[in-house]
Amino acid sequence: MELTNALRKTIQSLDTVKGRRATSLFMAEGTKCVLELIPFFKLNCLIATSEWIDQHKIADIESDNVIVSGRGEIRKISRLTTPRDVIAVFEIPESVDLPCDLTERLVIALDRVQDPGNLGTIMRIADWFGVTDIIASNDTADCFNPKVVQATMGAIGRVKIHYVDSLADTLAGLSASMPVYGTFLDGKNIFDVPLSPTGVIVMGNEGTGISDAVARAVTSRLLIPPYPAGSDTVESLNVSMATAITVAEFRRRQY
Amino acid sequence: MELTNALRKTIQSLDTVKGRRATSLFMAEGTKCVLELIPFFKLNCLIATSEWIDQHKIADIESDNVIVSGRGEIRKISRLTTPRDVIAVFEIPESVDLPCDLTERLVIALDRVQDPGNLGTIMRIADWFGVTDIIASNDTADCFNPKVVQATMGAIGRVKIHYVDSLADTLAGLSASMPVYGTFLDGKNIFDVPLSPTGVIVMGNEGTGISDAVARAVTSRLLIPPYPAGSDTVESLNVSMATAITVAEFRRRQY
Repeated sequence: MELTNALRKTIQSLDTVKGRRATSLFMAEGTKCVLELIPFFKLNCLIATSEWIDQHKIADIESDNVIVSGRGEIRKISRLTTPRDVIAVFEIPESVDLPCDLTERLVIALDRVQDPGNLGTIMRIADWFGVTDIIASNDTADCFNPKVVQATMGAIGRVKIHYVDSLADTLAGLSASMPVYGTFLDGKNIFDVPLSPTGVIVMGNEGTGISDAVARAVTSRLLIPPYPAGSDTVESLNVSMATAITVAEFRRRQY
Repeated sequence: MELTNALRKTIQSLDTVKGRRATSLFMAEGTKCVLELIPFFKLNCLIATSEWIDQHKIADIESDNVIVSGRGEIRKISRLTTPRDVIAVFEIPESVDLPCDLTERLVIALDRVQDPGNLGTIMRIADWFGVTDIIASNDTADCFNPKVVQATMGAIGRVKIHYVDSLADTLAGLSASMPVYGTFLDGKNIFDVPLSPTGVIVMGNEGTGISDAVARAVTSRLLIPPYPAGSDTVESLNVSMATAITVAEFRRRQY
């Protein structure tokens, strides 16, 4: 393979959802991120300096997929402020149907979480706490956005996001067989109420929270109480922090 | 007051620590952020559109400090991708000595936390959970960096950061009278061990964690366990998430 203009253009197109849909590809940068993703995704091509390739002799990469390139070239393609010595392009796996045994798991659902940084952080939290599946409304940030891929630090290989057309309908269906939790300012103190080891934890949009339609599918309304409890809280916790605290509390009861 | 070139230059200089030190000023943008900070900091000047000023008749602002300006002008001074209708310049308060009754409080200590976004998020967590004082090593991000100010969503008015020359020495001093906690991969499960309602929680640098010198002042090593406990965890939680989960767990035991 060679670093042709066509390939450069393809890689540039991976910044947008449109480009990623058209090609079914996404990109990742930097040694740590690239090496963590290689076991999980089919490699389309790997562009690296000759030093990097010498240092990281990766047995299972076909040499056909490797492009040796100079730092200057890599810098031009990179999306990072500080470009690294390796860029990989992977195939986006075909969308995975919701696993049928979801009722046996603790699952996160995202209602229009729009900031790529927040999505990446939430995927890392899921990864740390053994949550392998996230259901997301179609208007949630795309997990193959380069910013999300970098922010997940490899979690994108271990945590699957299932995008659905109507999160409200999906949750309404699930609520028949498992509890659906959401955090609301009028919810019950999460530290005081019983929590099921399996269920769905819904997190909402950065500005507007959980939408009314999705809220109707919530069977248990929770609150992360400010301290001291009942304090006036002008500003709520952001969605990543709320996810970290909520998922940690569910898992705390299970260790 | 007028929007002179000198004032424009001053505001531009507030992007850097050097500029903020030279002028003892910092800036904030947007209605929410500006209105939340007015009660806490002395206003140097407020630059806003005439519509904004009509909408937000603020009784305690002296008209001498107000500059009516067009959107185009504000856009030029703004540091935001989406400029708002108001920019305020405040005086940085003189540095506050460590309060002597620190032993009665739950305090956060930051060892070289460098990302302004992380510092802002940590200040919001502190604010939510009633932690009013943060001790920070001098090489921690500056809380008056415009990015931190915007990220704190007003918490910068309620949470004080005390920068110290040697965090290790400060903590060693405090450890005589109160427990000093830190999270480490070889620590004890935070959910299982006794936690004091007062004490210091040390959080470390994004890349390298808590430095050896500071670690020596830690009296109790904690771990936020992955789930299932004992899982291989390639990547640790980032510092903001670890702070959120740790502070929530300390407060959970006190509600």
